[in-house]
Amino acid sequence: MYSVTFLPDNRIITVDESASLLDAAEQAGVHINRLCGGDGVCGRCKVIVNSGDVWAEATMHLSREEVQAGYVLACRCYPRGDVVIEVPAASRLEGKPKPTSEDTLRFSATRVLIGEEGSYPHAPLSRKVSLPLPPPCLEDNLADYDRLARELRRETPIPVLQIGLAQLRQLPALMREHNWQVTATLGLRGGTEEVVQVEGGDTSARNYGVAVDIGTTTVVAHLIDLSSAETLGRQATYNSQISYGEDIITRIIFARTKEKLAQISAAVVDDINNLIAGMAEQAGIVVNDITFVLCAGNTTMTHLLLGIDPAAIRLEPYIPAASAVPVVRAAEVGVKINPRGLLGCVPSPACYVGGDVVAGVLVSGMAQSPEPSLLIDVGTNAEIVAGNADWLVCCSASAGPTFEGGGIACGMRAMPGAIERLSIRKGGQGIAYSVIGEGSPRGLCGSGLMDTVAELLRNGIIDRGGKIVARGQRVRDGEDGREFVLVEASRTADNRDIVITEADLANFIRSKGAIYHAAECLLESMGLGFDDAQNIYISGGFGNYLDIRKAILIGLLPDLPIERFQFIGNGSLQGAKMVLLSREAQQEAETIAGRMTYIELSTNARFMNEYTSALFLPHTDIERFPSVRLALSHIQEEVA
Amino acid sequence: MYSVTFLPDNRIITVDESASLLDAAEQAGVHINRLCGGDGVCGRCKVIVNSGDVWAEATMHLSREEVQAGYVLACRCYPRGDVVIEVPAASRLEGKPKPTSEDTLRFSATRVLIGEEGSYPHAPLSRKVSLPLPPPCLEDNLADYDRLARELRRETPIPVLQIGLAQLRQLPALMREHNWQVTATLGLRGGTEEVVQVEGGDTSARNYGVAVDIGTTTVVAHLIDLSSAETLGRQATYNSQISYGEDIITRIIFARTKEKLAQISAAVVDDINNLIAGMAEQAGIVVNDITFVLCAGNTTMTHLLLGIDPAAIRLEPYIPAASAVPVVRAAEVGVKINPRGLLGCVPSPACYVGGDVVAGVLVSGMAQSPEPSLLIDVGTNAEIVAGNADWLVCCSASAGPTFEGGGIACGMRAMPGAIERLSIRKGGQGIAYSVIGEGSPRGLCGSGLMDTVAELLRNGIIDRGGKIVARGQRVRDGEDGREFVLVEASRTADNRDIVITEADLANFIRSKGAIYHAAECLLESMGLGFDDAQNIYISGGFGNYLDIRKAILIGLLPDLPIERFQFIGNGSLQGAKMVLLSREAQQEAETIAGRMTYIELSTNARFMNEYTSALFLPHTDIERFPSVRLALSHIQEEVA
Repeated sequence: MYSVTFLPDNRIITVDESASLLDAAEQAGVHINRLCGGDGVCGRCKVIVNSGDVWAEATMHLSREEVQAGYVLACRCYPRGDVVIEVPAASRLEGKPKPTSEDTLRFSATRVLIGEEGSYPHAPLSRKVSLPLPPPCLEDNLADYDRLARELRRETPIPVLQIGLAQLRQLPALMREHNWQVTATLGLRGGTEEVVQVEGGDTSARNYGVAVDIGTTTVVAHLIDLSSAETLGRQATYNSQISYGEDIITRIIFARTKEKLAQISAAVVDDINNLIAGMAEQAGIVVNDITFVLCAGNTTMTHLLLGIDPAAIRLEPYIPAASAVPVVRAAEVGVKINPRGLLGCVPSPACYVGGDVVAGVLVSGMAQSPEPSLLIDVGTNAEIVAGNADWLVCCSASAGPTFEGGGIACGMRAMPGAIERLSIRKGGQGIAYSVIGEGSPRGLCGSGLMDTVAELLRNGIIDRGGKIVARGQRVRDGEDGREFVLVEASRTADNRDIVITEADLANFIRSKGAIYHAAECLLESMGLGFDDAQNIYISGGFGNYLDIRKAILIGLLPDLPIERFQFIGNGSLQGAKMVLLSREAQQEAETIAGRMTYIELSTNARFMNEYTSALFLPHTDIERFPSVRLALSHIQEEVA
Repeated sequence: MYSVTFLPDNRIITVDESASLLDAAEQAGVHINRLCGGDGVCGRCKVIVNSGDVWAEATMHLSREEVQAGYVLACRCYPRGDVVIEVPAASRLEGKPKPTSEDTLRFSATRVLIGEEGSYPHAPLSRKVSLPLPPPCLEDNLADYDRLARELRRETPIPVLQIGLAQLRQLPALMREHNWQVTATLGLRGGTEEVVQVEGGDTSARNYGVAVDIGTTTVVAHLIDLSSAETLGRQATYNSQISYGEDIITRIIFARTKEKLAQISAAVVDDINNLIAGMAEQAGIVVNDITFVLCAGNTTMTHLLLGIDPAAIRLEPYIPAASAVPVVRAAEVGVKINPRGLLGCVPSPACYVGGDVVAGVLVSGMAQSPEPSLLIDVGTNAEIVAGNADWLVCCSASAGPTFEGGGIACGMRAMPGAIERLSIRKGGQGIAYSVIGEGSPRGLCGSGLMDTVAELLRNGIIDRGGKIVARGQRVRDGEDGREFVLVEASRTADNRDIVITEADLANFIRSKGAIYHAAECLLESMGLGFDDAQNIYISGGFGNYLDIRKAILIGLLPDLPIERFQFIGNGSLQGAKMVLLSREAQQEAETIAGRMTYIELSTNARFMNEYTSALFLPHTDIERFPSVRLALSHIQEEVA
């Protein structure tokens, strides 16, 4: 047994020689980046051996200089004595994600407002009703629960009312001790309404809910006063499941035993609990008064949250356990609110299009409009929906992790140190950029990468095939082919050049091409083209920072009038909030999920055949991008 | 601390001097009779101090001879040293009640048949559906639960289908391991249908239910094959709650703390579990295949079964916690069947008229007949229902425990040693009787008591006021006034005369008078008389052994043509079985409970004023009983 010390956290753990440094870090609670889940493939888990003996596999992911400086891949390196390991900043998940997502909808005590016209009545999934009950007498000798039910039904018809034994047991004493003034909390549960709890006195002013967007990378939560629809708190954190794999597939593989499924489920439950506890404390409320949690996430995230085996999701024919998972008691999955509070999820239409997308469609209002629209959700995976009030089709495009910083030499998540905006002055000599957080840059996040590619193209530094055609001191030959230096080592946080390589450009083009082409095929499956899409809704964490003109320039988005594009922000979270606050919205979400037809593009011959035509900037057929043709001809002339 | 040894069980317990012998017996698990729950009032807990010092309160319940023989009342006697206590047979609850109640209905795989016309379709509250599911493919890629739901709904519409998280978690692996052949168990639960369990393979041939009549004194259960409607087992036992009080009121008072409520609840749950385990073993099935338990009992029994505080039931305005208690998981109350199996109760219309009576009304079919009928349920309390398809009224008559052997010098329950039939030869010299079980008689049970009174009257030994008017060697003056010796000490099990006293006769007359008069008032409340009742249904354990002619003779039942009377046996159990086997019967039971109007007789001036007129044999106004007048005039001439 050897002791492994991780710096800078200074955490020490004892392991045997069969444990990799990555295993040791996991046990020690130290997060080390990885995309591949520990298979030696992604090269993200670089650490430095400060002292002690190790055995490490040979790898292509470390340069000679790095090996000499003590770098190893944590997943392919095993201790052979007591060791001290330094986890460099680039391998750590630091800080918090861009804190919270702003509301793009307006929520009020009467309506949830979407867009310019649409609205849903305010009627939260959990409501408290203050009941000054008439005390029983010989003439009105209804049983306690029957009395409660009668008064509850006076205001609103309740076809099926249910109560659990635990609550029923408390009724007789509670009603009498509080002189027949009680408050019932009613929760909507799969077509029935449940008396979730009965409290003495009038507590109806204290009823809170939490909407959660469970992303593969980040978890965002809002705390909401269910009576006033006011948002009392907003917090976000990284999804701790990242420790078990950065993408969905890796996590599904990780969760293959009951114990590991429980472990990965607990990770995100802990994240949610931390967010809830933090928001409750800030808002000065007690978690016991939170009676409903409404989550939206992709299908795998929902399965893992509820501890349901997701194995069949990744195997053909790609089947989830349930599209609409039942509303459960939050305590059943370990989420800490009122012990009898409920937890629900926005339903998922298919394995690769989840409740987060349904939530986005709900927010866009496209499912009720006569005109066809397009919704593009750019996350770790890209999901696309096309449709109107008559039809809805959706697909998922394997865009790869490019937009999250994966597969890019200097790629990173949108966290402190990431370049999020970048522009190149004419001629490619001067470069200006902005960095998330204080301090020097460390790499490129999705929006920074998009900016970079667009600027390189606009300045004629790269050609439409993604090859570096310019010459100059910023251009050089690296291990992965030609590369362009964006920031010199002396100005970076890690003292290493921030570059973009031709391999990065090829990866990026494949990603943007997959999204563009998927959207095109989806519309074509209904006999339509991009021109027919009257609105293009952009959602997802990355979408928030997207520069539409640049996205068109590089061919991620079609060349349509700019006014047709609309950001819906974090559609998953906004939709979850709508559902939490409006039973009608909840119904509509179920209707949307039921209406959406999933189109499997990987088995679509046309998709595979014509995909390559999108592997240009912006496209093989520049005639499809008249505005870009105009812009580029002008620039190229200038460069020439 | 003293040791107390109870004979003949030879159980030893250590207690301090504040514990009565009754307390000690309770802790030692030795049952000692009591009616009053240990208040020194009923005099039923006589025990003999064989050795050791005790301190005992003075009591009127022990004769000088008994005190000299070492008798004490266990509830008023405290150890003052190590003692050996003998519990005589008369104070013990021995053997089992008359084993099982026979079916008065016919149950088949298609219909539940009642009476001569009525029937309900066979559709049990819990059904197993074997589902050879079509395996998913890219063209039919419905989620696992959605697939299950689709196939379930192919045959029957299910408006609200629910599933718990635990079941959902098992679905993906289960379906795939069993090649898409699964069996779903669906349980009806308050207007919704729940997927209670999903098993691999086709297990639909093994689905069992249990119907239970929870009486204050006895618990009777039938084990039923829910598919074929065949009864596989019948068992009965005493309700162990008797240890905490013989009647409802005493038990409600006992259950005043949470701990004691749990204790008294566990007592009957244990009884049910023992019956279920016994029947399952005999029938050769496993309890895991029992998926539904349906109970019928009075309102207090239902509350105690579910562990709901019944305190408000006995206090004006007499309010139960719920009329229709929700269907719960049997495991929640500790009933051991399939861990996810359900438990329901027949709904109760009022505090003093319970689900057992609703079950009886269901069995009689009176709630659907155009003609008015009367239902009399004679148990520890008597409940009476009058009505037809248009109206239903009910009341409860405090008949006292007379029919269960209470308040009668030599009264006892219908258990081994009880005289259940008795006839007196002309002139009152020879007496013939039959005894339950093998052996010598020990006392009179309800039916034996009724026979005795009728025979004494018919033979002119007592007058219509209940006074002993004959002379002879069987008549003597005792401590409680004049008494008539039925069996001499030498022929009895306890070597003590079995007598009936004038005090016994007065008690009996009060009891029968209360029932008769209550029925009369109930009909009168609707402007009717006995003549209007086209059918008189007799139910309840005692009812089974009732000799209608004798019951008319002594004025318990009205003087109507004999063919109008009909036994429905144990209506509570038969009704529970109907509900368990037919969803339509379940609906009808709810309708009946909702339709029944409870008439509180104790606040009815007419009831109180005219009650005394029923305190004669058969009635003050003999003209109401023409057949009895004829019979008595003949006999009295002969005696004279």
